[in-house]
Amino acid sequence: MANSNYIPGDTIVALATPQGVGAIGVIRLSGPKAIAICDSVFYGKQLSEQASHTIHFGTIRSDEGNVIDEVLVSLFIAPKSYTKENVVEISGHGSPYILQQIIQILIKKGARMAQPGEFTLRAFLNGQMDLSQAEAVADLIAANSQASHQIAMQQMRGGISTEIQKLRRELIDFAALIELELDFGEEDVEFADRKKLENLIIKIKNLLQTLMDSFRLGNALKEGINTVIAGRPNAGKSTLLNALLQEDRAIVSDIAGTTRDLIEEILNIDGITFRLIDTAGLREATDTIEAIGIKKTLEKVNQSSILVYVYDSFDLEPPQVKEDIAKLYKEGMKVLIIGNKSDMIENMYNQQALQYDKYYKEKYQKENWGGIHKEFEERGFLHIKEVSAKTNRNIILIKRYLINLAIGDGLTANQTIVANSRHYEALSGAHQSLDQALTNLQSGITGDFVAMDIRHALNYLGEITGEISTDDLLDSIFTRFCIGK
Amino acid sequence: MANSNYIPGDTIVALATPQGVGAIGVIRLSGPKAIAICDSVFYGKQLSEQASHTIHFGTIRSDEGNVIDEVLVSLFIAPKSYTKENVVEISGHGSPYILQQIIQILIKKGARMAQPGEFTLRAFLNGQMDLSQAEAVADLIAANSQASHQIAMQQMRGGISTEIQKLRRELIDFAALIELELDFGEEDVEFADRKKLENLIIKIKNLLQTLMDSFRLGNALKEGINTVIAGRPNAGKSTLLNALLQEDRAIVSDIAGTTRDLIEEILNIDGITFRLIDTAGLREATDTIEAIGIKKTLEKVNQSSILVYVYDSFDLEPPQVKEDIAKLYKEGMKVLIIGNKSDMIENMYNQQALQYDKYYKEKYQKENWGGIHKEFEERGFLHIKEVSAKTNRNIILIKRYLINLAIGDGLTANQTIVANSRHYEALSGAHQSLDQALTNLQSGITGDFVAMDIRHALNYLGEITGEISTDDLLDSIFTRFCIGK
Repeated sequence: MANSNYIPGDTIVALATPQGVGAIGVIRLSGPKAIAICDSVFYGKQLSEQASHTIHFGTIRSDEGNVIDEVLVSLFIAPKSYTKENVVEISGHGSPYILQQIIQILIKKGARMAQPGEFTLRAFLNGQMDLSQAEAVADLIAANSQASHQIAMQQMRGGISTEIQKLRRELIDFAALIELELDFGEEDVEFADRKKLENLIIKIKNLLQTLMDSFRLGNALKEGINTVIAGRPNAGKSTLLNALLQEDRAIVSDIAGTTRDLIEEILNIDGITFRLIDTAGLREATDTIEAIGIKKTLEKVNQSSILVYVYDSFDLEPPQVKEDIAKLYKEGMKVLIIGNKSDMIENMYNQQALQYDKYYKEKYQKENWGGIHKEFEERGFLHIKEVSAKTNRNIILIKRYLINLAIGDGLTANQTIVANSRHYEALSGAHQSLDQALTNLQSGITGDFVAMDIRHALNYLGEITGEISTDDLLDSIFTRFCIGK
Repeated sequence: MANSNYIPGDTIVALATPQGVGAIGVIRLSGPKAIAICDSVFYGKQLSEQASHTIHFGTIRSDEGNVIDEVLVSLFIAPKSYTKENVVEISGHGSPYILQQIIQILIKKGARMAQPGEFTLRAFLNGQMDLSQAEAVADLIAANSQASHQIAMQQMRGGISTEIQKLRRELIDFAALIELELDFGEEDVEFADRKKLENLIIKIKNLLQTLMDSFRLGNALKEGINTVIAGRPNAGKSTLLNALLQEDRAIVSDIAGTTRDLIEEILNIDGITFRLIDTAGLREATDTIEAIGIKKTLEKVNQSSILVYVYDSFDLEPPQVKEDIAKLYKEGMKVLIIGNKSDMIENMYNQQALQYDKYYKEKYQKENWGGIHKEFEERGFLHIKEVSAKTNRNIILIKRYLINLAIGDGLTANQTIVANSRHYEALSGAHQSLDQALTNLQSGITGDFVAMDIRHALNYLGEITGEISTDDLLDSIFTRFCIGK
């Protein structure tokens, strides 16, 4: 479980708070010399004589005796700390210049600049948390919606780990039976009742499948749900987009660091993030850069799980709607069709003193939509005909439908959601190994092959929690962290 | 000393660390209910039963019982805190989304969003620091060079306050003598020896003058020294700028939040900031926006204290140098003239097997520079003739000269520097009042006029430390702070 970047015994340092000017900034030290190094530059109480989880006021001084800053130092004595090593947190004034000075002095005194994620790596290596929990720390920091926050928090608090432990225990019990059989193999004893073993594997496979099934939803909730919004010019797409974004836009732009693609609008409904891809840019491409943009947009369209198609209900005929949707539809997409500009129809009918609700009945539902509507219904497409982005008519209904398309019946309470593609792949690997085990078991192949399959499955599951890990794996996980975590 | 925005008795909350994604973020609560409010959402130990300066691990939960974050809570019990009130600092995962959730919950439980600078305002109002120290907190956070850092630190640790207290004591002693004289005025008793009083006022005036004199330097060091860099096209100005900025640029751009004007380059030499204003943009103005830019540049040029003029020593004749400088020179400017491209001259002379050092002697010093050089010398202009930005020749000398032009003999150890224009104005006011007192004293006017002058002077000095303050003054100082400080 050694990691190439991890040199046990040294002390690391990094700024733990975001870059930039703030009221305070916090520098974190971890390692056996954390307290001694801080003591050598801190003027106040002797830190090495203080209790864990206490805070001390004093100054940080340079070798020349200049006061660099007045600070508060928080002490965490091993193993009662995030990394299970000695940890010191120095809370100084939030000037990037001064914080940088303090870090330089600490490095001069023997600390080393931390690698990205190295504090959490140490927490993992020292048994503070398993690998899936460590990964959840990064997800938690990146969380920018209620859904991604909940999933990360559940994972950090051991949601997945518990499920995996359960599966591992079942498999280990199974393996014990199989290997017992192997030991007595030449005596032709069958300790493990093969039918019972089959049922056990099927049960574990089902558990794996449930977790794997949650990934599509989990990943969508974590990353946001790619949603194409399409329609002909003048269908009122922009107005609709604005109506949908109205309350929400301020909240989204308040969250600093939200990465936004140029072609995307982020819509948050009930804590779930929708990445709205506007296909407006698809029409013209006058130069290479635009062409690249269009290629990227098309890729996004193809990856999208929801298609929102907006038409002008005053103007566009049902066959055209059907034709347009056919062009964008990809297998597996969920479709929401929106008949916009109902206000114009209302106006027209008001003026002509006609009954509004007769409109759809007479003109559309019978004459034009008839077969098309039925076809849409059969394919599970949702259709809201009476929408007015201008008067906000049925905007709330659209949001409710979007949520429904995104999460279906939603998250059941306490359901474990897999949202990490590495975990999904490991689960798939375990699932395949069990498939193989089942095949071997059913075809009466000797126990040692089955035992090997089970060991494979166990290894896959061990990768999720980090019981099985390689330097490369750890590197690839922790280099994605920010420095200071 | 009441402030309109300050409602004693309520509890304020704000994010104390910079906006953005980081490993951790810290939320600060201050006020009588800080601990109770935190206790109502914190699941861990009962905070109200814990000692001051201790740290506690637990979770923050919503009313519905959902875990919002795993946090560390630091307790500071009044008066042992920054504000002298109860203070709680909640250190959570550095997701802006999650930190915002926590703040929302704390507000729901009775905290109020803090105004900018309100924590420090409370520290001031509760006697933790005087006004000049409170101002230094903001300066410290904004510090982005060694010089601005030193000045702010000195001020925060009471440098100016000590000087002002000293002056106030002298004046109070003086006032006591004068007012004693007043009490016995009708008896025509002169307790205060007028000659002695005069000498005392002159002494205090001199002390004030020393502080006032430090302002020009202090302000320049704090804000950076505006330096014009000028020269004809092809004088090698950009290459020179790059040579000067070379080592430095990385450091500067590392400091996030450094506000940079488009026309400025920031050069740091020995911890002193030079704001280099390139006059290149002065030549063309094709539209209104550019014209505005040029107007701003010209204003900057006029405010600059140093002019660096670069010429191509291979090409440009001394009279042209003189002419160009005359156009940009303003009274009080310090001037550094740089003869660039010495490498080209060297090359030429090497090729012609001539002695390089004869070049200046024969061609320039005698024939062309002669009188002009003498004139420059008399006006105190510095001139480095043999510079090559290309080969870095004499770049270090330029830096040394710039430092010399900026701070002269520099800061003497422990000298108090005034760097705040509000302080400078108050000192000027006190100085004027003492002038008046001296005039009145010398012209034999009765003591009560003199006493009034002294009271004015005392009030001016009291404004610096905040012993005299108004709501408006406090508002104007603290609204410039960031929220959370």
